[in-house]
Amino acid sequence: MRHIVVYEVGPRDGLQNEAASIATSDKIAYVDRLSDAGLPVIEVSAFVSPAWVPQMADAADVFAGIARRPGTRYTALVPNLKGLARAQDANVTDVAIFAAASETFSRRNINQSIEDSLATYAEVVSRALASGIRVRGYLSTAFGCPYEGDVPIDRVVDLTARLLDFGVYEVAVSDTIGVAHPGQVRQLLERLLARVPAGQIALHFHDTRGTGLANVLAALPYDVNTFDASTGGLGGCPYAPGASGNLSTEDLVYMLHGLGYDTGVDLTALLRASALMAPLLTHDLPSRYYQAASRSAHA
Amino acid sequence: MRHIVVYEVGPRDGLQNEAASIATSDKIAYVDRLSDAGLPVIEVSAFVSPAWVPQMADAADVFAGIARRPGTRYTALVPNLKGLARAQDANVTDVAIFAAASETFSRRNINQSIEDSLATYAEVVSRALASGIRVRGYLSTAFGCPYEGDVPIDRVVDLTARLLDFGVYEVAVSDTIGVAHPGQVRQLLERLLARVPAGQIALHFHDTRGTGLANVLAALPYDVNTFDASTGGLGGCPYAPGASGNLSTEDLVYMLHGLGYDTGVDLTALLRASALMAPLLTHDLPSRYYQAASRSAHA
Repeated sequence: MRHIVVYEVGPRDGLQNEAASIATSDKIAYVDRLSDAGLPVIEVSAFVSPAWVPQMADAADVFAGIARRPGTRYTALVPNLKGLARAQDANVTDVAIFAAASETFSRRNINQSIEDSLATYAEVVSRALASGIRVRGYLSTAFGCPYEGDVPIDRVVDLTARLLDFGVYEVAVSDTIGVAHPGQVRQLLERLLARVPAGQIALHFHDTRGTGLANVLAALPYDVNTFDASTGGLGGCPYAPGASGNLSTEDLVYMLHGLGYDTGVDLTALLRASALMAPLLTHDLPSRYYQAASRSAHA
Repeated sequence: MRHIVVYEVGPRDGLQNEAASIATSDKIAYVDRLSDAGLPVIEVSAFVSPAWVPQMADAADVFAGIARRPGTRYTALVPNLKGLARAQDANVTDVAIFAAASETFSRRNINQSIEDSLATYAEVVSRALASGIRVRGYLSTAFGCPYEGDVPIDRVVDLTARLLDFGVYEVAVSDTIGVAHPGQVRQLLERLLARVPAGQIALHFHDTRGTGLANVLAALPYDVNTFDASTGGLGGCPYAPGASGNLSTEDLVYMLHGLGYDTGVDLTALLRASALMAPLLTHDLPSRYYQAASRSAHA
């Protein structure tokens, strides 16, 4: 039975895009429920500037409070050497860096050109690896940019290869704004996998236009085995009730299990994690599966 | 370029599942906007008992009020000979009958056993064809039943073949409760298409668990060329805000165009149809694409 790694990004990519401020204790309880669901990787928080992302200011406290389940890796986003040092102080063993495939997005999101950010990340990766810390790379706006529109596939392939050359163990090729459709996924993978091995590629889809699961389905025949998702679909745009951001972990796991893949994830336990967060948000959780399950629970 | 028929069910399957009562004039304006979008088929209403589905009580008035665009077929659901007669009085040239693949669902939904309903439908189809009216068949609960759970594929294949034998031009194999996943779609199509031609099969998915587009993607390699959808995702469960029912036409068309298929449908015009309905409902429209488009329009 083919195993698919579900890489949970709810506590980080989900929460950092939520308008509601979540208490540290609730974040800890959320991560613990995600651990109970048997997820193999949970991105817990980000060691970024608190002025920049206030929701992530308590990263060290969250890491200190969670129960670390054997078999689960707990990761954190780090933007630079300072972030890496903070992550190390919090006994984090897995970190992630985030580059962009669009120049304008890079400058607006992290205030650096792509090249300047890569110089920073080369140093972060080298320092992390020297300390025995694993590093993942994100490549954002790989399927489209909110400012530039189309992003050339050549650039995505090049940047992915460069991040892997730094020594990251995989690159999460990310559809930051949720425009990808299955045709584009196939085109990109044809070109990308001519250059790098499928085992070093993860795909990070947003469900903004409803294509999230279809994109996963399109990628599975290419032997990509890692997909990012957010429990409950957490991370829907905070200013548009019901609007969807991250692909929902429940929806993803439901489809993967239906296709006969093994994920090691307990879908019922995932719903318990979502149920914990639902009342703390300013909107309904966008996960279709969670909505359907809540409805039958109340019917 | 492969052509895919998008069969629009918003005014019928969508509206009949909405809690808000919609004025006849608004329904007419909605259908007219759908016509403007170039949809090849629009299911306008149902000639069913008004006591049973009050939202469809004005079927004849809606048909009398709409502008019929050349190139679009306008269809109506009919449950029996009386419904067919009402449809004929309204100059309807295309009707649809609806059988179920689950005995319990058949009894609860139309108060008849499957066999009794087939006897009725055989007569309806024969009478309709004699009057030059085309008939489509729906086979509901083909992927699962809310009362019985799993539905045997053999029964779905048999009932589809029997409906085609009556003389319907296609059967819309329908996932009434939105449980289908791509693995199940492939299994069903392998068996079904060994018995009946792909050109006589349409697929009707609900997006209740987020798998709607993935199911379409799974079906496309089998040469199924007709998919049902509801503009705006109209028909979301009226008692669960944001919950999704029918697959959204916008999401479907976005994906199909991305895959390089021709639909003849203007996506921007579809958004105008959704925008007309949005303020008349008791909840947000579930279509992911519509939500994303509304957000950027307001950003």
